[in-house]
Amino acid sequence: MSLLVIGTVAFDAIETPFGKTDKIVGGAATFISLAASYFAKKINLVSVVGDDFPSDAIGMMQKRHINTDGLQVKQGEKTFFWSGRYHNDMNSRDTLETQLNVLEGFDPIIPESYQDCEFLMLGNLAPSVQMSVIERLRNRPKFVVLDTMNFWMDIALNDLHQVLKKVDVLTINDEEARQLSGEYSLVKAAQKILSMGPRYLIIKKGEHGALLFNDKQVFFAPALPLEEVFDPTGAGDSFAGGFIGYLAESRDISFDNLKRAVIFGSAMASFSVEKFGTERIQNLSAEEVDDRVQQFIDLVQFDISLV
Amino acid sequence: MSLLVIGTVAFDAIETPFGKTDKIVGGAATFISLAASYFAKKINLVSVVGDDFPSDAIGMMQKRHINTDGLQVKQGEKTFFWSGRYHNDMNSRDTLETQLNVLEGFDPIIPESYQDCEFLMLGNLAPSVQMSVIERLRNRPKFVVLDTMNFWMDIALNDLHQVLKKVDVLTINDEEARQLSGEYSLVKAAQKILSMGPRYLIIKKGEHGALLFNDKQVFFAPALPLEEVFDPTGAGDSFAGGFIGYLAESRDISFDNLKRAVIFGSAMASFSVEKFGTERIQNLSAEEVDDRVQQFIDLVQFDISLV
Repeated sequence: MSLLVIGTVAFDAIETPFGKTDKIVGGAATFISLAASYFAKKINLVSVVGDDFPSDAIGMMQKRHINTDGLQVKQGEKTFFWSGRYHNDMNSRDTLETQLNVLEGFDPIIPESYQDCEFLMLGNLAPSVQMSVIERLRNRPKFVVLDTMNFWMDIALNDLHQVLKKVDVLTINDEEARQLSGEYSLVKAAQKILSMGPRYLIIKKGEHGALLFNDKQVFFAPALPLEEVFDPTGAGDSFAGGFIGYLAESRDISFDNLKRAVIFGSAMASFSVEKFGTERIQNLSAEEVDDRVQQFIDLVQFDISLV
Repeated sequence: MSLLVIGTVAFDAIETPFGKTDKIVGGAATFISLAASYFAKKINLVSVVGDDFPSDAIGMMQKRHINTDGLQVKQGEKTFFWSGRYHNDMNSRDTLETQLNVLEGFDPIIPESYQDCEFLMLGNLAPSVQMSVIERLRNRPKFVVLDTMNFWMDIALNDLHQVLKKVDVLTINDEEARQLSGEYSLVKAAQKILSMGPRYLIIKKGEHGALLFNDKQVFFAPALPLEEVFDPTGAGDSFAGGFIGYLAESRDISFDNLKRAVIFGSAMASFSVEKFGTERIQNLSAEEVDDRVQQFIDLVQFDISLV
């Protein structure tokens, strides 16, 4: 049984108040797979790149036991490219350029060896592409997590509503939750969104942490207070990767275990923002991950006995 | 031994997207004392009002065992008045009117019976007035908490720096922490502010919770996700009241107990915003308070065993 990750594998060019990169490797599926690789042993990647994508970046993923059989390499085509500039507060950014390139006609192919998929992570992509992956799996996975963004709410809301009926967890940020629900209060937004299909909703609030809702319970995980956020790109995907990777490895989808998974996801996000791109989450030791999780425990745990 | 609370006792007129009040009873010391009264048995109030202040509001405080011997009632003068309008997101507000009235010449008088002060809460007032209270106490209290705001950083920064050297805890919001320190990162801001004098810093982030720092540790308490925030006025003061009230009652100023106090403070703030003014925190049952604290426990507690 395995974890299947679909999403973009891409080039990013990033400007922050701390510096600037040329084209570096990014993409939702890259961050998700790398973050998940600290927990899940068997990760199958489905994505597409052009022939300009460096083979050593693919090698870097394989070294972290990510199976790239489902990564299509399109000869004569170019890899998806995004560039953006973060504002001084690091909470908002401007997109400078988007080149869809290979993503334009992306038709995800599921290798036969991926059909044992038990956990499915649908990274941010057109909802219709996310739906096609669900349809191409002969058995419905045990647990399906979907990430999306405001862009798809603007241009493909019907498709998004269709695929929302098929998933267990939706992960979006606070502004997207408000947009999707039409409610300002996140509690009310969560109730509305849960009625659209998913059993669980995770609202990511960046430096303000994350909320996990089901129809009866709510759990809050903080973000780690950091001296500097160096590059927020991929933080949400690293969160999702740590979350689904931990679940896939433990194979326990109780609410208590989802809470743990949110903490592991938050830990991976906190690493991700410390350096440009995927640099920080390519080579973590198990001890570094444990130390970071312990920081989260120390950050929020308290002992109150009500009589 | 007792808790001494100094701050404004005032009239507020509030507009929110949910409604509008005429003059109602408010003020930092009112919210602090009421919130503290659910924990501390002996609360001594120092403040000033005009002869327009209703005696039944004083009676309401006395019924919650708040000693008002130090509440000066100035004949022929008017009570401090503030009116404000909250924006739709409830996170920002405009001040419509401020009438200092009796506050202008406020000279706090400490009744002799208040000299056994062990815990001192300096609610938001001119730093020079806060300092005079410290100076008029013959013995330095065991624990001093100071609340302030950006207004005093703008017009009385030197006085604020002087009094900061005399206190154990400073409570301010995130924007004020940035203003006082000149640092955007709250972690860096905390380090700078702790070097100004206080041993602990609490940064209040409204709907995003609160952070407690000392020079080595950090603790995060969430705000309770609420369906509606009805009136944020007094939330920070209710937080401070729950915090110092819990500490004064338990007489334990270890970091572990400060963490508990932050949770009790957060619980009181979550009640305060549910109705206009002090209405919600005038008549809570012990069971309601315990239930609310249990909601905070359920909201953040998780169980991870690192091997």
